Amino acid sequence: MIHPEKIDTLLEARWIIPVEPAGAVLRNHAIAIDQGTIRAVMPGAEAHAQFAPDEHIVLGNHALIPGLVNLHAHAAMSLMRGIADDLPLMEWLGNHIWPAEARHVDSNFVFDGTRLACAEMLRGGITCFNDMYLFPEATVGAAVDAGMRASIGMIAIDLPTAYASDADDYLAKGLALRDEYGRHPLLSFCFAPHAPYTVSDRIFGSILTYAEQLDLPIHIHLHETTDEIRNSLKSHGVRPIERLHKLGLLGPNLIAVHMVHLNGEEIELMAQLGCTVANCPSSNLKLANGLAPVAALTSAGVNVGLGTDGAASNNRLDMFEEMRFTALLAKAQSGRANILPAWQVLQMATLNGANALGIGTLTGSLVAGKAADITAVDFSSLELAPCYDPVSHLVYAAGREHVSHVWVNGKMLLNDGELTTLDEQEILLRAEFWRERMATESKNY
Amino acid sequence: MIHPEKIDTLLEARWIIPVEPAGAVLRNHAIAIDQGTIRAVMPGAEAHAQFAPDEHIVLGNHALIPGLVNLHAHAAMSLMRGIADDLPLMEWLGNHIWPAEARHVDSNFVFDGTRLACAEMLRGGITCFNDMYLFPEATVGAAVDAGMRASIGMIAIDLPTAYASDADDYLAKGLALRDEYGRHPLLSFCFAPHAPYTVSDRIFGSILTYAEQLDLPIHIHLHETTDEIRNSLKSHGVRPIERLHKLGLLGPNLIAVHMVHLNGEEIELMAQLGCTVANCPSSNLKLANGLAPVAALTSAGVNVGLGTDGAASNNRLDMFEEMRFTALLAKAQSGRANILPAWQVLQMATLNGANALGIGTLTGSLVAGKAADITAVDFSSLELAPCYDPVSHLVYAAGREHVSHVWVNGKMLLNDGELTTLDEQEILLRAEFWRERMATESKNY
Repeated sequence: MIHPEKIDTLLEARWIIPVEPAGAVLRNHAIAIDQGTIRAVMPGAEAHAQFAPDEHIVLGNHALIPGLVNLHAHAAMSLMRGIADDLPLMEWLGNHIWPAEARHVDSNFVFDGTRLACAEMLRGGITCFNDMYLFPEATVGAAVDAGMRASIGMIAIDLPTAYASDADDYLAKGLALRDEYGRHPLLSFCFAPHAPYTVSDRIFGSILTYAEQLDLPIHIHLHETTDEIRNSLKSHGVRPIERLHKLGLLGPNLIAVHMVHLNGEEIELMAQLGCTVANCPSSNLKLANGLAPVAALTSAGVNVGLGTDGAASNNRLDMFEEMRFTALLAKAQSGRANILPAWQVLQMATLNGANALGIGTLTGSLVAGKAADITAVDFSSLELAPCYDPVSHLVYAAGREHVSHVWVNGKMLLNDGELTTLDEQEILLRAEFWRERMATESKNY
Repeated sequence: MIHPEKIDTLLEARWIIPVEPAGAVLRNHAIAIDQGTIRAVMPGAEAHAQFAPDEHIVLGNHALIPGLVNLHAHAAMSLMRGIADDLPLMEWLGNHIWPAEARHVDSNFVFDGTRLACAEMLRGGITCFNDMYLFPEATVGAAVDAGMRASIGMIAIDLPTAYASDADDYLAKGLALRDEYGRHPLLSFCFAPHAPYTVSDRIFGSILTYAEQLDLPIHIHLHETTDEIRNSLKSHGVRPIERLHKLGLLGPNLIAVHMVHLNGEEIELMAQLGCTVANCPSSNLKLANGLAPVAALTSAGVNVGLGTDGAASNNRLDMFEEMRFTALLAKAQSGRANILPAWQVLQMATLNGANALGIGTLTGSLVAGKAADITAVDFSSLELAPCYDPVSHLVYAAGREHVSHVWVNGKMLLNDGELTTLDEQEILLRAEFWRERMATESKNY
């Protein structure tokens, strides 16, 4: 007889939806977790024989899925949730967001805003977010405090702020931050040039050099609006994608966010060069930019992940909503109701995002050897009854309110709806502090 | 000194958003309710002096809005939630829904399914639904048991079912039901010819005669797919709207559901004749039919309400989701981020629906003299923090999970998230009973 192996946790649920292999739904299975890592995913009976867990958790009416990966966030902007709605992008940015940021954003703002965002994201089953914002050292602090996985953007923008004076200064600060935290088990780093219209060719050149040297992703807003494309044609004689291509930035390290306005050649080019698109449907719709051609991108073989964007343009950090939007919009846009079935959209929201961030061997699916980044969805509420297919329900019927438990790196951060590492009341008090300050100091709000 | 007037309930909240007048947000106000009716909406201090309520409820962090009006539902289809996803309309209807209905649907199915739907809708802040389904006497039973307001469709379809043998039989049964329940305080009635492709000119003629005589709305699926229009051109030589126009059906009593494919003349015609459009964005997207031109319809002056459609094509009966989709899609479709601001979408989801159903003097806004059909939304969760504008949050950030209380006709049907008239566990057991029956008896599922 085999002596059972000691492990930290054995986790059983009604369904396990591991994302790898694609489309699989496991019944009567268990996940064995030890030292933050998934040791095995196997039938419950076998797991009982093989393992002696310190903790044995049975979630009888739940589905376990990989923790959701939010591929595009400005987490700290949660403090500007709904501050200026129903406005187009450049008016929203130029007359509201950038002035508010210039007046208020410092490292305290970023810490408090990111902590609020982490709380919201964890409650919604998100275990990892890819961030682009000022004062990323405060983002690091908030994410690590929360125990959440984060990809930290080393932001570069030709716009002086309280954080940095010019694009070189931004880059230097970002690289120094990476030097300090590059080996933290919860953190990874991206270059985050803001957009083609706010970053010069020279800075793109520096970023490319560093990105190749360090093998890091490049995370950029791209082809978000028709204005962006028109202005690039005027200033550079080419569309932004072509400009970045000439500069050598298109490749497997590129995470291109939004990508609403694309022609067939550009879709083909993205596919050939192995680029990733971060689809942010709520934000693209709300700012009236349009719909990314997700069905066409997927058919061409482009890796597509999903992002919430910031709460000032969404106004929720809710990957369930982005999954549902992505699936439904692709059907209407393509005229084909069978396009992007639910399992494929769940893969976008998990594994595709992890792969884009260069951490696909660490997270994004429930397989042995990866970190235990796990989200449990409770199917016992009547909004999910009856259930013929749990994967369909996850995308079409469930909401983030059905998320009950979340683990990151094996640590339980949400326990039956309660945050274990974050103080909800304190977070709410800080949100109210910033709201009062922004509402009274600014005439606009 | 004035002697305070005895009333049943005084209801105070952080915000009251009455929908009439449009865009108003009242702070420190109260709603006085007596015998199911709103007696007054006034400043809290004045209300304290004027009224002596039996019950005084203070919801310190909540917004009170009119109960949401779901303008297009097939409530009983909640038992087929997710039974056949990722399929186009005619394949979905012809190969899955209609066969399943033929095999399983009886008055027990409709009662159990409608009760499940009522529970879901009440939990999501919906106080009134406009239904179209077989065995409407069971819909009546379930709605009245729940205490919910319903507009009952007197369905007509040229398709024999267990409910009725032919279109005349459907109509006769519907009219008999109305004779029995026409004066019930929670019920109103509509004619509900299924669609142009399933109803003959002769039956449309009978319906028109009755509708004019009884002054009742006519609730019909219209211009949902391009196939519907193509087939009408083949069979009738005209597009469905033109056919109905020639038959005399277009007018203030018409509730045209879906209306995805419209030309400019048709939009103008709908506006001139005072028709209502029931926009069902989730369903239209999911079945790959497209987007209704909501911005153009609204600009032309057409009354637009919102509906969830059935849970088999949505797959949630969630008016918050339909509000958010309507607002966001209109922006992307029109290219104008300032179109359909939040207050206007809230009006669609409440007053516009009530007006279409001919019960706009009874419900749809929070004004003296109307029934106390009220939904409370709790703003204390961190997903709604900070809050610069509660109306924006209702549409862009809140979800049905933030609904805490619901009153219909002055009776509290949801109390801090708990249903007061419906037994959740029994509803779940019945949903599971039907799921097992449908999954085992049908090879498809």
